[in-house]
Amino acid sequence: MTLAHTSRRLRYAMVGGGRDAFIGAVHRKAAALDGQIDLVAGALSSGPEKARDSGRDLFLADDRNHGSWQELLADELRRSPEDRIDFVSIVTPNHLHYPIAKAFVDAGFHVVCDKPLVHTSAQALDLQRAVQRQGQVFAVSYNYTGYPMIRQMRHMVQSGAIGSVQKVVVEYQQGWLAGAAESSGSKQAAWRVDPALGGIAGAMGDIGSHAENLLTTVTGLTIESLCADLSTMGAGRTLDDDASILLRVHGTEGSLSWSQETPNQLWHSAIGAPASVLTTASHGLCESAMKASRLPAGHPEGFIEAFANIYLGVAEDIRARLQGLPTTPAAAGYPQIDSGVRGVRFIEKVVESALSSNKWTLLTSHTDA
Amino acid sequence: MTLAHTSRRLRYAMVGGGRDAFIGAVHRKAAALDGQIDLVAGALSSGPEKARDSGRDLFLADDRNHGSWQELLADELRRSPEDRIDFVSIVTPNHLHYPIAKAFVDAGFHVVCDKPLVHTSAQALDLQRAVQRQGQVFAVSYNYTGYPMIRQMRHMVQSGAIGSVQKVVVEYQQGWLAGAAESSGSKQAAWRVDPALGGIAGAMGDIGSHAENLLTTVTGLTIESLCADLSTMGAGRTLDDDASILLRVHGTEGSLSWSQETPNQLWHSAIGAPASVLTTASHGLCESAMKASRLPAGHPEGFIEAFANIYLGVAEDIRARLQGLPTTPAAAGYPQIDSGVRGVRFIEKVVESALSSNKWTLLTSHTDA
Amino acid sequence: MTLAHTSRRLRYAMVGGGRDAFIGAVHRKAAALDGQIDLVAGALSSGPEKARDSGRDLFLADDRNHGSWQELLADELRRSPEDRIDFVSIVTPNHLHYPIAKAFVDAGFHVVCDKPLVHTSAQALDLQRAVQRQGQVFAVSYNYTGYPMIRQMRHMVQSGAIGSVQKVVVEYQQGWLAGAAESSGSKQAAWRVDPALGGIAGAMGDIGSHAENLLTTVTGLTIESLCADLSTMGAGRTLDDDASILLRVHGTEGSLSWSQETPNQLWHSAIGAPASVLTTASHGLCESAMKASRLPAGHPEGFIEAFANIYLGVAEDIRARLQGLPTTPAAAGYPQIDSGVRGVRFIEKVVESALSSNKWTLLTSHTDA
Amino acid sequence: MTLAHTSRRLRYAMVGGGRDAFIGAVHRKAAALDGQIDLVAGALSSGPEKARDSGRDLFLADDRNHGSWQELLADELRRSPEDRIDFVSIVTPNHLHYPIAKAFVDAGFHVVCDKPLVHTSAQALDLQRAVQRQGQVFAVSYNYTGYPMIRQMRHMVQSGAIGSVQKVVVEYQQGWLAGAAESSGSKQAAWRVDPALGGIAGAMGDIGSHAENLLTTVTGLTIESLCADLSTMGAGRTLDDDASILLRVHGTEGSLSWSQETPNQLWHSAIGAPASVLTTASHGLCESAMKASRLPAGHPEGFIEAFANIYLGVAEDIRARLQGLPTTPAAAGYPQIDSGVRGVRFIEKVVESALSSNKWTLLTSHTDA
Repeated sequence: MTLAHTSRRLRYAMVGGGRDAFIGAVHRKAAALDGQIDLVAGALSSGPEKARDSGRDLFLADDRNHGSWQELLADELRRSPEDRIDFVSIVTPNHLHYPIAKAFVDAGFHVVCDKPLVHTSAQALDLQRAVQRQGQVFAVSYNYTGYPMIRQMRHMVQSGAIGSVQKVVVEYQQGWLAGAAESSGSKQAAWRVDPALGGIAGAMGDIGSHAENLLTTVTGLTIESLCADLSTMGAGRTLDDDASILLRVHGTEGSLSWSQETPNQLWHSAIGAPASVLTTASHGLCESAMKASRLPAGHPEGFIEAFANIYLGVAEDIRARLQGLPTTPAAAGYPQIDSGVRGVRFIEKVVESALSSNKWTLLTSHTDA
Repeated sequence: MTLAHTSRRLRYAMVGGGRDAFIGAVHRKAAALDGQIDLVAGALSSGPEKARDSGRDLFLADDRNHGSWQELLADELRRSPEDRIDFVSIVTPNHLHYPIAKAFVDAGFHVVCDKPLVHTSAQALDLQRAVQRQGQVFAVSYNYTGYPMIRQMRHMVQSGAIGSVQKVVVEYQQGWLAGAAESSGSKQAAWRVDPALGGIAGAMGDIGSHAENLLTTVTGLTIESLCADLSTMGAGRTLDDDASILLRVHGTEGSLSWSQETPNQLWHSAIGAPASVLTTASHGLCESAMKASRLPAGHPEGFIEAFANIYLGVAEDIRARLQGLPTTPAAAGYPQIDSGVRGVRFIEKVVESALSSNKWTLLTSHTDA
Repeated sequence: MTLAHTSRRLRYAMVGGGRDAFIGAVHRKAAALDGQIDLVAGALSSGPEKARDSGRDLFLADDRNHGSWQELLADELRRSPEDRIDFVSIVTPNHLHYPIAKAFVDAGFHVVCDKPLVHTSAQALDLQRAVQRQGQVFAVSYNYTGYPMIRQMRHMVQSGAIGSVQKVVVEYQQGWLAGAAESSGSKQAAWRVDPALGGIAGAMGDIGSHAENLLTTVTGLTIESLCADLSTMGAGRTLDDDASILLRVHGTEGSLSWSQETPNQLWHSAIGAPASVLTTASHGLCESAMKASRLPAGHPEGFIEAFANIYLGVAEDIRARLQGLPTTPAAAGYPQIDSGVRGVRFIEKVVESALSSNKWTLLTSHTDA
Repeated sequence: MTLAHTSRRLRYAMVGGGRDAFIGAVHRKAAALDGQIDLVAGALSSGPEKARDSGRDLFLADDRNHGSWQELLADELRRSPEDRIDFVSIVTPNHLHYPIAKAFVDAGFHVVCDKPLVHTSAQALDLQRAVQRQGQVFAVSYNYTGYPMIRQMRHMVQSGAIGSVQKVVVEYQQGWLAGAAESSGSKQAAWRVDPALGGIAGAMGDIGSHAENLLTTVTGLTIESLCADLSTMGAGRTLDDDASILLRVHGTEGSLSWSQETPNQLWHSAIGAPASVLTTASHGLCESAMKASRLPAGHPEGFIEAFANIYLGVAEDIRARLQGLPTTPAAAGYPQIDSGVRGVRFIEKVVESALSSNKWTLLTSHTDA
């Protein structure tokens, strides 16, 4: 993992991610891991007092520890380029992504935004148009794509190692919402089961877009149509059960299988040969998988390291821009705004299909035309 | 993972860990992960030019990017307490640990030192006496003890969950030195097979002390005597083969088993009951295992996260001292200098037993008396 | 595994299962395993010469080694009860099950028939009526239900160990037909891809009914409706890809998971507790799982042993009848003709749903009314 | 698995293996599995009444259901060759192996004897001389060598697939004697902890010779010397803890690993390549592993099937002799009397080494000279 030299670390601000938050802390650890990026500013909660307390936990300077994202944005715009943040990370609950991301994009900032991008396709397309107009870096943190073995899987599928793709199976199972967690004071549970905050889908909105993103990233294929079934098991909500992500891709000449809970292994079953188990950082991996591995074979890497690869990609892209080099978002390998748009549309179509008695529903759209 | 507040991040310097190094980069990522500690100074290689190039890679300020550890030490002693480092991390090849650690301890700095501590028991005891005299934080980075499930294992063994301990099996197998890696330009291989640099033992010196440390940490027991067999398979060296750490502890009422390559799982086989698989951050873990988990169950954590728990313990201990609170090295949970001393003596006794036709050899010593 | 005493082993004849056949040999090994049943007669192939050669391989006496099933049936009817077979096993290709089974049932013989029972619901119901009229033992060899851990799973689900069942996932993946095996002389492949021999469905007809049977056996629930998608990937056929059976049942209080390729383990994830791994013949299994285990814990049992449990159940039922005891087909635990009927209807409804653009299709029927 | 034709099944008698016995029932199932061998006579227990009750359970004819092995032997010697057994299986407690095996060998019968062969090297060598004099088939039922993947492992090691063998690790761990099972009426436990019945070693005597046999079979190497440590944990006995057999062989170019609890998989880690998982009956296995597989890939086989491969080898050898063909014990692949002798000597030397403060002890002997 090397980066072109610049004379300083990159600087970023965070919106959301205060004291009780889960994903904000993951973003911070991921950004910090490789010593390339410093957190220098924030508006870490929607309540001003809690925002500032959270900022003090993180050693933010008082004049960059804000009570609202609007104050943060105004303050950054006032600062000189030598002092200003290089990008902002938006890790609020989903329903706030759209206005915040839109404002920072319009003001010319690079953005990392948690997934799913926004609540509706209309918002997603609007945001996409703004990004295209400004030409910014805009990353959506589908962090599973940062796992080295997912990159190896993508390489193998797209270079023909398993022949033509015939079938893809993606499963994502969670157990933590099997009980009524939202009734026992869990903030994490509460917003996920509230349509005003979580959007039109519950578990599907939270994690369904991971499935779409893994499928698309690994295969390079686009989902043509889908036929979905959603059900609400817990009182008043959509619910998945158990806790693992599993991805399998079957082709004419073999299959590949990966499970998020043992992320350092990728199983490859070529037809007519023994299954083989490729592992992180081992001989013969593709360049992109090697680049995504920080440690020699036998040293397990996990969720945060995968996440950090998204941030490394963003940093690499921003540094290239700072140095006036041609930008290479594809080579940098982080999921961009089109991934975010596609994920939002996927969720909408799943719900549409489920509401109309599981009809097969096309996924075509304006931007594909 | 919370820490008592202070108004700033801790500052540290690194000795060793330049451009080609492996373990130095791991230390840096571990120190950075939780946003508590900043790298501000360094003497990153034994060659001054390479040292400074390596420091620039890491964005060190020019006046804190030194060509030798002696310069680094002199410079830090000149600085005011408001500016001075809080501790130093020593990640050089093993044969340099002793003089560097000794000098920083004598000068009053807290130290994190990579394992094995030093080359001989005489050096180890000398260093231990210096630490005891000064009262510093001195951590030895046996990072396996930072894995949440090792902490859970320790808790279960020491709280009697498997009855009396009857047998402990620790295996550490590596494949990377099976070929003559030292002849093909691997710096990592070269120093490990050179007695002048690696000490009296090869693989045993490199990783054998991990085994001793895991056994002692998990069981709370001390090795009374040992009977060892060492052999040299590759041309002129001691060699292990394959790549995994496995630790099993058998007691009168059950057994526990953990493998470093799937570190988020701990297998517990109670006699007369189905085996159960405890996982990181899941319900019912002990306090210390929960504290060592950064993410909810189902999100894999790895080698760097375990390593970072050593640094978090060190940071917690140093902060307590800065705040004038009673220091709590045991609660902080990082391996201290006595672990380092024990590891050095273990390696010596293994070699002694092997050289005298595998005689049973006692492990008693001055400090135990 | 104990059986009520009679003074002799049971005697059976086999129809089908000649020299090239796969499943016939499995039936024979399963029947032989426990020393309760002797093969004494046969019509082992549709070609008279091959039938007799196959019979000589199996040491059949010349006068009971027949060239056709009609000859076998006629010969047995001529014999005295002291000499006559106790039951017949039908292991021909699927399209011959109906006429052979019908003839033996009408003649008053007990029958073991391979799955799927027959090709159409009309045949299935006709056969079911005949069995009900005669009151015979009629077993359908869904052998997965003979695995001890499937019996344990059924016990746990039906006794409420995981609360209310919310979701069941059954996957059966095969790789051997991924290439065009039928073009390279494989008899096993040829009949499975020929609608005249295999019926209206390919892989679904061959193994889909296993999925239905596992679901029904384990949960005690009936499939209400289904929405199916079938596709033909290989030239002119329906195809599954890869090779494993996996069964998971999710309930309100936990989940159970079993994979046929490691059949001696049953994973139980109770919500809020570590996963536990129940193993064959270990402490605390239910009576029916213990009865289905032949060896102490730690000694793997496999496919043939599971199959043999079907035969043990059949033998237990036949012996009870020979001794004039009340018959206990349910306690004997082998799948009966209603399982066969249900499997045929399931395949028909899958095809019906797939042909009508994946409409949700009810599975109700005459016999349920 | 094919055998040369003869006009009849082989006939055998069993000594030991009555109602409470474990291993006798395993032998019977193994012998029955393939329809090649009939049990026709027995002396199934040391008590005449229990012996005959046990024989009736197995449907033995009254005139071949004996109260002692001496009666069985006398009766068989009176019978004509057309009626006489082809071989005897000895499955009594270990201390009775010697006199019974000696008597049947001297009388000219082929023998299958459970392991360990006898109690002392003197007995073993005496028996070996008798077998060599008579030229009989004499199999020792080390059934692990019947597993297809052990045969594959042997093939790979001996054909150089992992280069020169550098290290072999065999572990056999059991949990069932962790409690004082002998005090709670377990017949299986009682004789294993009684030196008069079990011999000079407890767990080592029971299962230690499996370890020696696996090592020797797989590598084709002979143990030169050993250094052993035995301890008695339970009241008055030697005890192993936990329940699995694991065998790993490390060579210069890779390693192989197999665990008895998942016997259908063999892991092969070639240096510099991904690990691969060879499975029973899959493409590319050696001839002897394919011959030892009864079912297609994906259908698990277990302990009894491995055991049955010993019996198939014996049957193949006996049939060849009946047909006057050159005998091929090596090709038949069952463990012969020299394996039994080696196992007894191994146990003796383990105890000798342990009693003399773990001295390195040579394993040379008369027969090797």
